[in-house]
Amino acid sequence: MTQTPPNPLLQALVGDEEVGAFFSNEAELSALLRIESALAQAEARVGLIGDEAATRIGEACASFQADWGRLASGLAQDGVIVPELVKQLRAAVGEAHGKSVHLGATSQDITDTALVLRLKDVVGIYGRRLDALTHALRLMREREGSTPLMAHTRMQQALPFTAADKIDTWIQPLERHREALAALAARLLVVQLGGPIGTRGELKGQGDAVAGAMAEILGLGYAPSWHSQRDRIGEFAAFLSLLSGTLGKMGQDIALMAQNEVGEVKLAKGGGSSAMPHKSNPVPAEILVTLARFNAGLLGTLHHALVHENERSGAAWTLEWMVLPQMVVATAAGLRSAQALIGSMTFSPLRT
Amino acid sequence: MTQTPPNPLLQALVGDEEVGAFFSNEAELSALLRIESALAQAEARVGLIGDEAATRIGEACASFQADWGRLASGLAQDGVIVPELVKQLRAAVGEAHGKSVHLGATSQDITDTALVLRLKDVVGIYGRRLDALTHALRLMREREGSTPLMAHTRMQQALPFTAADKIDTWIQPLERHREALAALAARLLVVQLGGPIGTRGELKGQGDAVAGAMAEILGLGYAPSWHSQRDRIGEFAAFLSLLSGTLGKMGQDIALMAQNEVGEVKLAKGGGSSAMPHKSNPVPAEILVTLARFNAGLLGTLHHALVHENERSGAAWTLEWMVLPQMVVATAAGLRSAQALIGSMTFSPLRT
Amino acid sequence: MTQTPPNPLLQALVGDEEVGAFFSNEAELSALLRIESALAQAEARVGLIGDEAATRIGEACASFQADWGRLASGLAQDGVIVPELVKQLRAAVGEAHGKSVHLGATSQDITDTALVLRLKDVVGIYGRRLDALTHALRLMREREGSTPLMAHTRMQQALPFTAADKIDTWIQPLERHREALAALAARLLVVQLGGPIGTRGELKGQGDAVAGAMAEILGLGYAPSWHSQRDRIGEFAAFLSLLSGTLGKMGQDIALMAQNEVGEVKLAKGGGSSAMPHKSNPVPAEILVTLARFNAGLLGTLHHALVHENERSGAAWTLEWMVLPQMVVATAAGLRSAQALIGSMTFSPLRT
Amino acid sequence: MTQTPPNPLLQALVGDEEVGAFFSNEAELSALLRIESALAQAEARVGLIGDEAATRIGEACASFQADWGRLASGLAQDGVIVPELVKQLRAAVGEAHGKSVHLGATSQDITDTALVLRLKDVVGIYGRRLDALTHALRLMREREGSTPLMAHTRMQQALPFTAADKIDTWIQPLERHREALAALAARLLVVQLGGPIGTRGELKGQGDAVAGAMAEILGLGYAPSWHSQRDRIGEFAAFLSLLSGTLGKMGQDIALMAQNEVGEVKLAKGGGSSAMPHKSNPVPAEILVTLARFNAGLLGTLHHALVHENERSGAAWTLEWMVLPQMVVATAAGLRSAQALIGSMTFSPLRT
Repeated sequence: MTQTPPNPLLQALVGDEEVGAFFSNEAELSALLRIESALAQAEARVGLIGDEAATRIGEACASFQADWGRLASGLAQDGVIVPELVKQLRAAVGEAHGKSVHLGATSQDITDTALVLRLKDVVGIYGRRLDALTHALRLMREREGSTPLMAHTRMQQALPFTAADKIDTWIQPLERHREALAALAARLLVVQLGGPIGTRGELKGQGDAVAGAMAEILGLGYAPSWHSQRDRIGEFAAFLSLLSGTLGKMGQDIALMAQNEVGEVKLAKGGGSSAMPHKSNPVPAEILVTLARFNAGLLGTLHHALVHENERSGAAWTLEWMVLPQMVVATAAGLRSAQALIGSMTFSPLRT
Repeated sequence: MTQTPPNPLLQALVGDEEVGAFFSNEAELSALLRIESALAQAEARVGLIGDEAATRIGEACASFQADWGRLASGLAQDGVIVPELVKQLRAAVGEAHGKSVHLGATSQDITDTALVLRLKDVVGIYGRRLDALTHALRLMREREGSTPLMAHTRMQQALPFTAADKIDTWIQPLERHREALAALAARLLVVQLGGPIGTRGELKGQGDAVAGAMAEILGLGYAPSWHSQRDRIGEFAAFLSLLSGTLGKMGQDIALMAQNEVGEVKLAKGGGSSAMPHKSNPVPAEILVTLARFNAGLLGTLHHALVHENERSGAAWTLEWMVLPQMVVATAAGLRSAQALIGSMTFSPLRT
Repeated sequence: MTQTPPNPLLQALVGDEEVGAFFSNEAELSALLRIESALAQAEARVGLIGDEAATRIGEACASFQADWGRLASGLAQDGVIVPELVKQLRAAVGEAHGKSVHLGATSQDITDTALVLRLKDVVGIYGRRLDALTHALRLMREREGSTPLMAHTRMQQALPFTAADKIDTWIQPLERHREALAALAARLLVVQLGGPIGTRGELKGQGDAVAGAMAEILGLGYAPSWHSQRDRIGEFAAFLSLLSGTLGKMGQDIALMAQNEVGEVKLAKGGGSSAMPHKSNPVPAEILVTLARFNAGLLGTLHHALVHENERSGAAWTLEWMVLPQMVVATAAGLRSAQALIGSMTFSPLRT
Repeated sequence: MTQTPPNPLLQALVGDEEVGAFFSNEAELSALLRIESALAQAEARVGLIGDEAATRIGEACASFQADWGRLASGLAQDGVIVPELVKQLRAAVGEAHGKSVHLGATSQDITDTALVLRLKDVVGIYGRRLDALTHALRLMREREGSTPLMAHTRMQQALPFTAADKIDTWIQPLERHREALAALAARLLVVQLGGPIGTRGELKGQGDAVAGAMAEILGLGYAPSWHSQRDRIGEFAAFLSLLSGTLGKMGQDIALMAQNEVGEVKLAKGGGSSAMPHKSNPVPAEILVTLARFNAGLLGTLHHALVHENERSGAAWTLEWMVLPQMVVATAAGLRSAQALIGSMTFSPLRT
């Protein structure tokens, strides 16, 4: 019933278990339910619904058993999963408080906030991996920085320099990405609440208060409704591609240095070949290049979704769904591969 | 163990069960085994391996039970699934004939041919769907062609015309795509066999004969090795984007005509809203636009994989794997959505 | 008055004088006038306008002196140059026959046909350059084909082969591109004539005859109006990117082989450095990679213009104008650079 | 001799005179000379060259007469303009101090800093235009904010709201872009100085001091060499696409509201048609959509240039040159068009 996206096995090479998990069906549903629950709690705080209703909704969200088949067909019919989910959730809550579910909200409020909620965890993971990678590079620099290497410009030998010089060009952009991540987190990790047309008009003048309470409950920042303003998403995607690009550049460098004829890098254990047992292929280095190009292209595709017509564009929003999670996972895969690559390589002194 | 790509549920909206099935793990494995088996039969025909070996390999392929965990870690290690698969397959074949498995071939021979084999079925499906869609449009033209509509240029009313005029602009490119599909099938659906470096050098002068026999067994065309020549893939991807673009243009037109203020198209049953029960959203029309933009962007990304360095590029080839199956499925989803859309819409006469 | 696009000097590196000339202001205007003249001759043939009018229009087109400032401001105002051009042309024709100018046509008829007319010449140039390049590669194969080289897969040494093996992988896709060019020319090089809304409705039942006569006069093929069906343009752009990709792959190979450490290719005279006099940079090889990536990306951008809403999309059409000419020139630059590169390189035997 | 890029006239529609001027040949040359001069002054300050040499170089830069033909052929030969420029400049400086020209620098130092220097002015222009546009939108909001409009979600009428609600969704992202511009300026507008391989190794331990002095003289920020770290460029390009996307969304909204059937926006004077005198086309609104898609696609293309192999990639760097200036001008054109559009439109009350 629920179909699998193409090429699941490939995720073993270019996926990431930890970050990919945030985009499973279960994680998606769990996040949606957390948002519906938080909305109810927030509405109870400002008195839009009763405490009993909020409690009942919280319980129902916690113990919710989805009818996945209907969620899938609801998504196919409505273009968004929330209408069918709300229907099921209202049934689970029961008649007395069913109408208090999803009060004054629209599908996009739930879906966007559920995305942001997971991105918050992802941003944390990125931060830790960036730190670990930078740390590993610094250690490598201490250990092997004095190794003499040959600099290359325009695919030709230029002048001698050292491994430290090379490593510096990898570390510096990573440090900038680390700073950028912290700065964009404040802009990205904000609640979405606008109601049907983005004006919070169904919330009886309490919209800002509800949004504020939701944000607090969920540990997100506050923002006015941003249904049709996708610059936050576009900025985050640009970050992903910039980071992937930096890692791809590092991978390209290492693949070039690991060429047999150049021999400036040794890889502990390369990829095997089905036909040539002597080979040791620089697979993680190549993958970094792949992921950089993948994310560069997807970034261009995602930015088309900035042209989000009127108060909500089904076409543009769906495009985001198809593209952004892939970029998020590919970036995580890049950080993971880069860490493995650095851990398995050593520099070899320039042969003269 | 094997991870799931992000957002599986979304496939209910933008996926395609029939075509998506060709890119499941099981379908991938099954195709790889068919190629290894066909290779062995072909090599037996020309006498490179014994008939007994070929028979045993055929049996082993037919009854093969994969160790999926090891396939995944082999893929992660080697960057390609075939080395580990060959190892498992050789074990299954047994010592006597294990060495005859994969003889003179390289991973890319198996992987590329397994892709092409499945694309052959996909091309057939596309052909049937294109025929059905064109047929439905012709019926609609017969039925409603005389309905007066308003032509629009540059987002403004231009002059009156008829539904037939409109439908013609949708049918004509579909007819060209149908022709193009037939023409490109002959170029695309060819065997890949080159051995480690694309020269068929391990096949003792019998390489062309083996490739010819393989092609015949698999129902594919013959071609010299094309390991590093990815224009076939790039041409097919361009076809996918052109077709998706034509469908996206149709979807955009219908979404514009279905605007309440325009009212030239009625949709039988639109998508529901969680907040506005009165709405009937043109979801399949929007999805056609989404899929067009998705494939347009992916096409640009895939063409970067044409820069396939030397005899085999791990980086470029992996990029193909990440992109092409998605395009194939998205195109199928477009054809399916378009058929459903045409089946659920009627024109409304121009209001004056 | 008329502004210059950014970075003109860069055209010395990545432009092409012969093909670029078709996209100068003068060439654009000249083509537009040829179409207006051909339209008038065609309309006279079928009796829609008088012979005298057609003659007068032909003369006025031949001797037309544009007011460039007004053309530019007309373009800025109307989004298309033709309304102002027709105004100036009618004035030049004079009152007696001014109304016979542009009769029953729309701006898009003139602009699209003027593009196709120039693409016809461009297709001829591509064909000749492809032939010359393939010829040069064949000569090189005869001359140096037996040179022993090392094949490389996944950025690692694989097994020895010969220069002939390498050159074959460059020639084969070029041969396919040559065939594809001939096949697409028949589809691409067709007249555009639809009138205001693509129905030829203003041409008193003579639209098909006028279009046929125009096509004959201009040496183009006949086609029904294709205002909003941009698959022809999209297919041509895909061809450009495929060809550029093949050349980019060749450039990448050569840049890799020309690395000092590899030394399998010598370049007669490389690019100089402002800081390192010893360097000889493989500039034309690098440029082929650049142009491949440029066109790959632009292809993805151009295919978004397939979503051409309703009978004419100002937004999508303008996007084509911004992208396609650049791709056409970049492809020409690639063919030129590739020819120069092949002419200046020799293989060096594998050092063992 | 120097060729013109394709389609110059089109710049009247999608170009920008003020910002485009920074990318003329003359502006390019003038910036390059300012950098060579600043380098000499900086080197004199730290004692690497004599004051007399620096003075003479400053004079020669100020009065320099280029041999444009040789600059073009130098660019075509070397892949970069600086080697030939330095040659001409040394000749102009004269034998006594010629060797002090370009001392310890590499082509990329001059070219990148000359780009950044012009981007500083561009950033200033963007800032002023963003302020003016936001101001115009705020005035419009004051004037017409209470006009009742219909909100639209998923291409269907949703619920009534007001022009103020609509305008708010346009202003808010512009305010974020304004802040982002200020923040990125500090990262982007920095000097490039690395010498041949990015280590400042030819500057006798004075490299950091020279770079600091150069930065001060040019009014730029200080940074370590960033030859192969293109994240600054990639981040700036992302900003350009985000801003263009916001403007494109506004254009799309206005084009939709200006549809005759919707009639929520009136445009003072639309674009004319060569065939339908009654039409008033929303050209500047359409162009905003075009520019958004153009920049979205180019962004994806530019990010491929992040994979900048080793110490300097000719292929990746040239790709930047082909793409970034176009994006910079297109963004400026968008701001200009948006200002004109806002100035020429009025809202019409919702018809019920």
